[in-house]
Amino acid sequence: MIILGIDPGTALCGYGLIEVQGNRLSSLAYGVIRTTAEKPLPSRLLMIAEELEALIAKYKPHRLAVEEVFFSRNVTTAMTVGQARGVILLAAAKAGIPVSEYKPTQVKQAVVGYGRAEKGQVQDMVRLLLCLSEKPKPDDVADALAVAICCAHSVHQEERTC
Amino acid sequence: MIILGIDPGTALCGYGLIEVQGNRLSSLAYGVIRTTAEKPLPSRLLMIAEELEALIAKYKPHRLAVEEVFFSRNVTTAMTVGQARGVILLAAAKAGIPVSEYKPTQVKQAVVGYGRAEKGQVQDMVRLLLCLSEKPKPDDVADALAVAICCAHSVHQEERTC
Repeated sequence: MIILGIDPGTALCGYGLIEVQGNRLSSLAYGVIRTTAEKPLPSRLLMIAEELEALIAKYKPHRLAVEEVFFSRNVTTAMTVGQARGVILLAAAKAGIPVSEYKPTQVKQAVVGYGRAEKGQVQDMVRLLLCLSEKPKPDDVADALAVAICCAHSVHQEERTC
Repeated sequence: MIILGIDPGTALCGYGLIEVQGNRLSSLAYGVIRTTAEKPLPSRLLMIAEELEALIAKYKPHRLAVEEVFFSRNVTTAMTVGQARGVILLAAAKAGIPVSEYKPTQVKQAVVGYGRAEKGQVQDMVRLLLCLSEKPKPDDVADALAVAICCAHSVHQEERTC
């Protein structure tokens, strides 16, 4: 199973594609979609949509994973993240890919084993679990890979329960 | 010139298409795109995108008008509106339609002549300016037509200034 994890944002949108084979996880690709503030917002959203659609076409993920809406940030951030998130969820729906959403505490629990883990611990564990030679940077990439790992664990548990 | 005004929302997304001929405004179509909370969010966003793309294909608007982000609402609303807004701006960018954004006070000023007008006054003026037999309902439709009227005035002023 291939999972595409996304950390939505307009300036930087992190993505991480992982492959799950039994208990084994490996990374297929990861990075950020960058858009420049000089372009109008609709063009920036179009760039995100097109790059995401290209990733979906290339890697054919079976699920898309994102963090649930994080309510404690401010209204401006919520609107900005919301706009990018809308475009991402739309890309998933257009491609017929189911979307799984996870709470930040679920992601940390799945990756570090502790729901209140620090950002650095999550990044270290992402590197270890995916056997990467370096910590994935920037944070947006590590966060995207982390939510993909959380999705992999969740699917694995569902399969064991069935 | 044909202008498509949008009042973004996930459950109810208001739209209003108006035609501008000199000083004369007329409405071509208006209504709401409704999505049900029973469907997953990505499917609801896809419904909005598809209905909007159909409206754009049918009426070929020259501009799309939306209100600027309204920062004083709460974070949950901002995220929900943001997701719908992202999908709408993306549809405009895909169709190559320029997007104009207006502050709520600009919309009220353009429609009623007073930036702090009440909602009811805006609805009455929308009905009068577009020669509609009834107030457009729900509020989302009147708001969408109002922002389209604001865009029409703004374009008219730009042309006079040039």
